[in-house]
Amino acid sequence: MAKINANYHKLNAGYIFPEIGRRIRLFQKENPGVTVYRLGIGNTTEPLTPAVIAGLRDGVDRLAGVKTYSGYGDEQGEEELRLKLAEFYSRRGVKIALDEFFVSDGAKPDAGNIQSIFSADNVVAFQDPAYPVYVDSNVIAGRSGLFNRDRGDYDGFIYMVCNEENGFIPEPPQQKVDLIYLCSPNNPTGAVATHQQLKKFVQYARKNRAVIIFDAAYSEFIADPELPRSIYEVEGAKECAIEINSFSKIAGFTGVRLGWSIVPKALVAEDSKPGDLHSLWFRRQTTLFNGASNIAQRGGIAVLSDQGLKESAELVGYYMENARLIREGLLAKGLTVFGGVNAPYLWLKTPGGLSSWDFFDKLLSEAQVVGTPGSGFGPSGEGYFRLSAFGHREDIGQAVQSIQTNLKVY
Amino acid sequence: MAKINANYHKLNAGYIFPEIGRRIRLFQKENPGVTVYRLGIGNTTEPLTPAVIAGLRDGVDRLAGVKTYSGYGDEQGEEELRLKLAEFYSRRGVKIALDEFFVSDGAKPDAGNIQSIFSADNVVAFQDPAYPVYVDSNVIAGRSGLFNRDRGDYDGFIYMVCNEENGFIPEPPQQKVDLIYLCSPNNPTGAVATHQQLKKFVQYARKNRAVIIFDAAYSEFIADPELPRSIYEVEGAKECAIEINSFSKIAGFTGVRLGWSIVPKALVAEDSKPGDLHSLWFRRQTTLFNGASNIAQRGGIAVLSDQGLKESAELVGYYMENARLIREGLLAKGLTVFGGVNAPYLWLKTPGGLSSWDFFDKLLSEAQVVGTPGSGFGPSGEGYFRLSAFGHREDIGQAVQSIQTNLKVY
Repeated sequence: MAKINANYHKLNAGYIFPEIGRRIRLFQKENPGVTVYRLGIGNTTEPLTPAVIAGLRDGVDRLAGVKTYSGYGDEQGEEELRLKLAEFYSRRGVKIALDEFFVSDGAKPDAGNIQSIFSADNVVAFQDPAYPVYVDSNVIAGRSGLFNRDRGDYDGFIYMVCNEENGFIPEPPQQKVDLIYLCSPNNPTGAVATHQQLKKFVQYARKNRAVIIFDAAYSEFIADPELPRSIYEVEGAKECAIEINSFSKIAGFTGVRLGWSIVPKALVAEDSKPGDLHSLWFRRQTTLFNGASNIAQRGGIAVLSDQGLKESAELVGYYMENARLIREGLLAKGLTVFGGVNAPYLWLKTPGGLSSWDFFDKLLSEAQVVGTPGSGFGPSGEGYFRLSAFGHREDIGQAVQSIQTNLKVY
Repeated sequence: MAKINANYHKLNAGYIFPEIGRRIRLFQKENPGVTVYRLGIGNTTEPLTPAVIAGLRDGVDRLAGVKTYSGYGDEQGEEELRLKLAEFYSRRGVKIALDEFFVSDGAKPDAGNIQSIFSADNVVAFQDPAYPVYVDSNVIAGRSGLFNRDRGDYDGFIYMVCNEENGFIPEPPQQKVDLIYLCSPNNPTGAVATHQQLKKFVQYARKNRAVIIFDAAYSEFIADPELPRSIYEVEGAKECAIEINSFSKIAGFTGVRLGWSIVPKALVAEDSKPGDLHSLWFRRQTTLFNGASNIAQRGGIAVLSDQGLKESAELVGYYMENARLIREGLLAKGLTVFGGVNAPYLWLKTPGGLSSWDFFDKLLSEAQVVGTPGSGFGPSGEGYFRLSAFGHREDIGQAVQSIQTNLKVY
């Protein structure tokens, strides 16, 4: 008699995006014909750039010819792509060996699956608030106790509170933990860890033989040259950190699907020597994954060409101009807002102490703008609200205008 | 102190394909300039067909325009693709609802990940021999005991022996099991289960509330109209079976990456009601996966168009003509060979009672042909050898010729 993985029952059922969808549909039913501005989901909206389109077309054309056709590719991704990635890191002064890159179909699968190479009894620490995949994947794998509906947290997990006082970048945990998820630039807060802040985590991890899972999916949105774009800019990080990154936000690949992870051969855990964790992830990926699409990989190679990087910077610049417009519009309205300077997310403090969901309803009904309630990202997100800079300029402008004109803030 | 998932240590380290690669490199070093014919890996070699190339190009072109650009798509796959899939099944008299399809990046990830929605203490049965992903994914998840090097099996797993006596299609297990992996047409044996044989498994599963994981990745290679191409052709299968399929072998998508799973809403397990397993897989996929590439999905829609299906049938016909050539060549040589009629794999009984690896060395050194030792697919594969029909016609012809001329069979 087949039995299900009961850990799924522990997952907080009230997943945020379906509930947002439900409330939007209800609003539209009650207000037919009214335009709703969606700054909720971090989904790219602008077309791929010319160099990338050319690369993808080349990827398709290769499959049409008997001499250029390819089936299953290199297990860790096309070598040409990994060479380009190595160059990409090299320009930041970070040396990564070709076989330390694992090309994948995006940061989300990697961020979700990476936990599976670790023991089920590892203690895990998360930034609070955080991208829900880190928490949910560890719940499914059985590393949590039950969800506490009143507190909005899971037993057994360590929450590293991110708040106004610490600039939304926490200190390393007081107690010993085994795995630490860090995301910088952060989704949802838009906060970016400094070199000094990351260094503290690296020191903590090396001291405790913990492993840091560093999600750098928004690294290219960092404008400030002083801020680290890779955890490997910190000395010693290769012994204690895995880095995950993606073409989704750099180049508009949310639908194309392409990302990469770096598992350094120097990485160690309690019961492993250098190379073991690298071998484990290799085994995981070759057993349960079969490579990213060869077409997408040709697109990735094009993104990392000189022309592709130039176009990518312009694309990032477009969204960051959106972020600036939202930020200035909200500040002009007298709202308290964080992020949006080195990250495409803005983290709004709800006015008048409203709960995240109450502000969601208020923003939707008064200004017809949809955002994401901060409480959906963890208990410390309560009282905050995420706005995404991914959108057409015109829509962003209208949304900001509508907030300025219609939102009632006392 | 981070600890690793120790189940990885249980995996039989001698994974077959790296060892094959090692022996080929050694042979080539000792015999420089000698051509080696590779019939080892089931990797497609022929270009994509015109309708599919047009579909993929359209997929790329859509991403270049502001009005047609798309980012994250439907969670279960583009509706247009799922509509085409529903039609595809409908032509076989099988009705699948649109929301029972989960479009993925291929059969391998689905075959590997599906076990994760079930409890770690479920007892699992496998065809022996079988595609290694079924066994390996369950070892990693902790459902096995240790590997027995002498017997070539894992403690705790149930092996359903496939041999000459049962035509390589086993009876359902004698004991109670919870999960059953079936692959038909089978990789590696090329055997195809009849309707009656599948019916026995469905009856067994319904009686024992077991779940069948049915891998139909080679279904389009079935030429005999009497043989079932989907387990749902058997009454009652929706209550007890998940089906996995792929565009890899139908349409040459091994590198493009596109597949699908069907989790019927009628499916039940011991501790679940209809819809629960469907919800679990939905939750798994939306938490740990982010959809197949939108370009690949446009290609999949093209494959399932009238013209695409016609071209796909020709492509399958090409490989099946290869299979016929190999089969007839081996039979003419006096060898005993199975499969290759409704499947792209041939299952050769090694002559003179040679072990699979001894025959590998003999075939390589005498005829310069590479195949896959049957023992790599499970203990009952010992004494057998897999040859793949995926290759250019000319290479296949030369390989067969070389076997006929050079292989010493007494």
